[in-house]
Amino acid sequence: MNTQTRPNGRQHNELRQIKITRSYTPYAEGSVLIQMGNTHVLCNASVLDKVPPFLKGKEQGWVTAEYGMLPRATHSRSDREAAKGKQTGRTQEIQRLIGRSLRAVVDMTKLGERTIHLDCDVIQADGGTRCASITGAWIAMADAIEHLLAKGDITENPLKDKVAAISVGMVNGKPVLDLDYSEDSGCDADMNIVMTGAGSFVEVQGTAEGETFSRKELNELLDLAEQGITTLVTIQEQTLKSNTK
Amino acid sequence: MNTQTRPNGRQHNELRQIKITRSYTPYAEGSVLIQMGNTHVLCNASVLDKVPPFLKGKEQGWVTAEYGMLPRATHSRSDREAAKGKQTGRTQEIQRLIGRSLRAVVDMTKLGERTIHLDCDVIQADGGTRCASITGAWIAMADAIEHLLAKGDITENPLKDKVAAISVGMVNGKPVLDLDYSEDSGCDADMNIVMTGAGSFVEVQGTAEGETFSRKELNELLDLAEQGITTLVTIQEQTLKSNTK
Amino acid sequence: MNTQTRPNGRQHNELRQIKITRSYTPYAEGSVLIQMGNTHVLCNASVLDKVPPFLKGKEQGWVTAEYGMLPRATHSRSDREAAKGKQTGRTQEIQRLIGRSLRAVVDMTKLGERTIHLDCDVIQADGGTRCASITGAWIAMADAIEHLLAKGDITENPLKDKVAAISVGMVNGKPVLDLDYSEDSGCDADMNIVMTGAGSFVEVQGTAEGETFSRKELNELLDLAEQGITTLVTIQEQTLKSNTK
Amino acid sequence: MNTQTRPNGRQHNELRQIKITRSYTPYAEGSVLIQMGNTHVLCNASVLDKVPPFLKGKEQGWVTAEYGMLPRATHSRSDREAAKGKQTGRTQEIQRLIGRSLRAVVDMTKLGERTIHLDCDVIQADGGTRCASITGAWIAMADAIEHLLAKGDITENPLKDKVAAISVGMVNGKPVLDLDYSEDSGCDADMNIVMTGAGSFVEVQGTAEGETFSRKELNELLDLAEQGITTLVTIQEQTLKSNTK
Amino acid sequence: MNTQTRPNGRQHNELRQIKITRSYTPYAEGSVLIQMGNTHVLCNASVLDKVPPFLKGKEQGWVTAEYGMLPRATHSRSDREAAKGKQTGRTQEIQRLIGRSLRAVVDMTKLGERTIHLDCDVIQADGGTRCASITGAWIAMADAIEHLLAKGDITENPLKDKVAAISVGMVNGKPVLDLDYSEDSGCDADMNIVMTGAGSFVEVQGTAEGETFSRKELNELLDLAEQGITTLVTIQEQTLKSNTK
Amino acid sequence: MNTQTRPNGRQHNELRQIKITRSYTPYAEGSVLIQMGNTHVLCNASVLDKVPPFLKGKEQGWVTAEYGMLPRATHSRSDREAAKGKQTGRTQEIQRLIGRSLRAVVDMTKLGERTIHLDCDVIQADGGTRCASITGAWIAMADAIEHLLAKGDITENPLKDKVAAISVGMVNGKPVLDLDYSEDSGCDADMNIVMTGAGSFVEVQGTAEGETFSRKELNELLDLAEQGITTLVTIQEQTLKSNTK
Repeated sequence: MNTQTRPNGRQHNELRQIKITRSYTPYAEGSVLIQMGNTHVLCNASVLDKVPPFLKGKEQGWVTAEYGMLPRATHSRSDREAAKGKQTGRTQEIQRLIGRSLRAVVDMTKLGERTIHLDCDVIQADGGTRCASITGAWIAMADAIEHLLAKGDITENPLKDKVAAISVGMVNGKPVLDLDYSEDSGCDADMNIVMTGAGSFVEVQGTAEGETFSRKELNELLDLAEQGITTLVTIQEQTLKSNTK
Repeated sequence: MNTQTRPNGRQHNELRQIKITRSYTPYAEGSVLIQMGNTHVLCNASVLDKVPPFLKGKEQGWVTAEYGMLPRATHSRSDREAAKGKQTGRTQEIQRLIGRSLRAVVDMTKLGERTIHLDCDVIQADGGTRCASITGAWIAMADAIEHLLAKGDITENPLKDKVAAISVGMVNGKPVLDLDYSEDSGCDADMNIVMTGAGSFVEVQGTAEGETFSRKELNELLDLAEQGITTLVTIQEQTLKSNTK
Repeated sequence: MNTQTRPNGRQHNELRQIKITRSYTPYAEGSVLIQMGNTHVLCNASVLDKVPPFLKGKEQGWVTAEYGMLPRATHSRSDREAAKGKQTGRTQEIQRLIGRSLRAVVDMTKLGERTIHLDCDVIQADGGTRCASITGAWIAMADAIEHLLAKGDITENPLKDKVAAISVGMVNGKPVLDLDYSEDSGCDADMNIVMTGAGSFVEVQGTAEGETFSRKELNELLDLAEQGITTLVTIQEQTLKSNTK
Repeated sequence: MNTQTRPNGRQHNELRQIKITRSYTPYAEGSVLIQMGNTHVLCNASVLDKVPPFLKGKEQGWVTAEYGMLPRATHSRSDREAAKGKQTGRTQEIQRLIGRSLRAVVDMTKLGERTIHLDCDVIQADGGTRCASITGAWIAMADAIEHLLAKGDITENPLKDKVAAISVGMVNGKPVLDLDYSEDSGCDADMNIVMTGAGSFVEVQGTAEGETFSRKELNELLDLAEQGITTLVTIQEQTLKSNTK
Repeated sequence: MNTQTRPNGRQHNELRQIKITRSYTPYAEGSVLIQMGNTHVLCNASVLDKVPPFLKGKEQGWVTAEYGMLPRATHSRSDREAAKGKQTGRTQEIQRLIGRSLRAVVDMTKLGERTIHLDCDVIQADGGTRCASITGAWIAMADAIEHLLAKGDITENPLKDKVAAISVGMVNGKPVLDLDYSEDSGCDADMNIVMTGAGSFVEVQGTAEGETFSRKELNELLDLAEQGITTLVTIQEQTLKSNTK
Repeated sequence: MNTQTRPNGRQHNELRQIKITRSYTPYAEGSVLIQMGNTHVLCNASVLDKVPPFLKGKEQGWVTAEYGMLPRATHSRSDREAAKGKQTGRTQEIQRLIGRSLRAVVDMTKLGERTIHLDCDVIQADGGTRCASITGAWIAMADAIEHLLAKGDITENPLKDKVAAISVGMVNGKPVLDLDYSEDSGCDADMNIVMTGAGSFVEVQGTAEGETFSRKELNELLDLAEQGITTLVTIQEQTLKSNTK
């Protein structure tokens, strides 16, 4: 249906080059640099011996996330949120999404009263930073959980499944997978899809930027996303199996 | 497929009782109280003779929204955002969604250099406040545009279509339409769907709260949402035709 | 002394049309919509099982208030305080006044260690919002106390008296009662008077906006205010006796 | 009526010892240290060549005030507002009062497009700081205006009258003048009265702290305040005539 | 080496006129007004019965400082930090310096679980406010400690030494001591030196404003600072011995 | 004088392993990752076509810096400044230091009305992050200036000299160069020294953490720093000459 290649040379259903580096920094319990083309996100997982107030004494854990972008991660410099004194609505939306996505695959009762805090910081951005954050953060979280198991702090693995995310969108009337920045800023509609390793949906977020989209187009986009996430989950699996940690 | 009634007595595909009052307050260019069961939202549209900095001199207008909830709109009192000194992530997410949804059906070049600012304030909340905000705000915006046309400030109608929103969700494994608070807080997955009068999608936001959802379930939820929005759009149409303003 | 009617058609000593609706929203322990002409304020009383830090362990309760105005309650839109990240000096002044006024008629030792928190939110404003807030909040507080007595949470009624408030001012050199916005913004001096049902003063706040005022004028204003508050207190009494809750 | 002396040895109608130092600091256009007993307030008047946005191009000036209290001005240390990141409601209320009081005696059209900004900083506090601020700030403002006249920046004196302020209150059922901290914290009701040199009212602010007050008591308090302010205005007059600047 | 006098008439190694007033305000446990020429700083020491969270239960005390400048302490008015809602970087830098300097001469284990909180507020500023703050705050702290010893709250004196500070700088290529504002704003490089009574360094902070400085110049500046601090420490000693408290 | 090696195996006058990567990210006009042992800082230089308000119309440029640390750059996670809504005093102190240091070697009149904005973000921290930031930022700034020259935006090179920084400290009574975190947190006194390529001082900041230090020790520390900076400046020179950009 969609044979011509994109300006970036990729097929409509082709992911960018992916590179994942574990133990990227020496201190965090899980530390993953995920590179999807020119989008590079550092995902650090910290294990904290506390839970949010609403969970105190409930004998369960929590998973949460914060997201940030270095001021010059992008073509032009954006203001530093710490200097302005507040996080933008976009930042808050993204970090809430990352947190919900990861919580969907963790059994909190097996974590004990501790929090896995994911910090996803974008070193450089070329579109798809929230999806790369989720995919990378899952590996960082898996490494942090492995660390807890190895130390004997927990005895059962609370990880129920993998989770990964990808963007899809209608560009010039055609569905494409894994949009880079120039595609994203020019597209009619784009979606961010979060799915588990088992293939069910965690989040489906589609937005018509320019043109609204039909049910048929929605279905084509979901088909593409399923393909992409299948590949990402395989990469997650292989990464954990490798000795690269 | 789904014959039993819900705890609230509604069919699985049945909307709550809807009541829309135009010109609810005397000052705003458009002022709509939308009541969907026990969810009551006041949507005021203000016409402002300015645009955001990034649009200055571009000979086009803008549509934006802010959302708030009175502290005791809910079962237990929540903190007043103005007193705490910041809006929650949830508030920011919702007001960004309302703004995007309305912008999808407005031709900004026909508005002139002015902003339609929607204030959606929840007087009482029983689930579905963001969807009610969008559906009600569209009417308030239509009245504000009517006001601009009547005054001769603009000559062409910038409204391209209607837009309305509804929630759907998997409750006890079954898809239901227009969740109230007790259904929403207990459901496995819920979606907020925003569609135009022409039946295409503006926003699709689905979240697995407890259980992730399959492609088949996603399709059932989208079917339900389409039904609900068709009804809402008809109500919007009838409301504007009536003399009640 | 003052026979001509005002631009709004009222006599110099005539209150606006007053309408009070109890149980306006379904969740708050006391919920009152007070309408004085075009000024509409929703007063919700919440019972909270905590007291401020300085009262912990002192076996007494507290009464406090917050005040807000919807952005488009007025002729032109004002900024949303939650979005700006702080309450104006005017808002703080008003909510402190409401809190002090209500505390003057409550025996805190009979409340137990709980707080009655009044939220006064102005839906639409045509002058006199702080006075309407006090008069309406007293009824909401009375309903919340009734609720506590009915549940058996307290056994003695902590309410010592009624309290109501009204504005008076010198308009074109003549004293008038219950100023609306156009009178208020053009007046020489105005006062907000808070009195108990027994007729003694709780607060007297007079400000010369344009012209300073003499002792004789002050006395005429106080006379007018006493008349107005006598009427308001009677309305409060009748409202509580009615079955409308 | 009230013959016994107070714990502090003063008669019921006796002001504290007053000392006023002009040119207290070398830089401000007007700089006055006012000492009323143990209450010491430094009032600096700065002439700024700008007006607030709402007055731009209106060919008139403005007078405004800010108020602060050093953290250890009082018996126990209070938090520094700059460190907490916001001014309390009390601070805002007081600085708005000072500004309004001073504006009542200035003809803004004779000031030109400039602002007289009063900074009232409490070095030590023993009650009555807002009243001392107003009385002292008027002198600082008069010196700043004198400075503008001397430089030829303005040709007509915009000062219409003097303005001074004093507190009165019911202490143990008896009216007293110029309350110190121990009287103020134990009193039934207290008022802050602001009057012009001509003897008319600018502000009347009475609050029942413990017991509400009757019309008769209100009148007694106003009588006392008039006496006190007559004295203060005389002191202001003498201060300006002296060579001490 | 440096025989000509400065524009202010002082020799290159001459301090400004110094005047120290103890018990300047009546409430603080230590209250010192230090005047170095036209730089006047009020240093209040408060004894608080608490320690910061990181010291709870560690059986030791803490010393900390806050710094502020009255808005019109300087030639032109600067914004009030409390009104802007945050302290500048300069303010934070200075108050951190004061705190560190004082902590260097206190044995925290002898203080018990209490904090000595220094408030250094600049009444008028003519350069060198941070150094005057340190020199004055040490005396206020010594008085507060004397107060604790006199009350028997502590039994051993936690003061290990004196500490004082002075500025030095290269002005027109020559090293001078104790810069006033006009020297400071025109100088090539300036240093703030903090030393103990025993003559060792606590802080050395040198900054090239215009011209960088050589090792030889650095040594000359340090020589000058040592001289100045020797004098300041003697003055501290004499002040404490006098009966002026 | 100091022959034994340190716990980290280095000689007392030995720098950590240094690696500098230019063009680390693709968008910034200068982008340098500097690694000094386990301290990694990304220094991005952005060219902005504006100057701060106080320089408008003065026909000169500006250089400024911001500093941040990723939350899990360190052994235990620290709060994200953007989420807390303000930068710590430490952060502000450091970014002011970086800005001043770089400005010391730039001729602002040759920059035109533009700002070089340095963002120094610590990816991982093992002591010495402010010094690494300065040394790395200078290279990023040099690359940004090269970019301006290459584009013809400026014609004369505004760079007057190199600038680099290093820490020194007394550890167990002995002076050592380039402290890592474990040395820094256990040392008696430490200094951060900033020098130009020509060997003169830009900043000298010494702080006694535990023990105060003598003039002799200060001299030994300065000797060490001079050695270290000579090496760093040579590395800067070689880096710019290489083709690695």
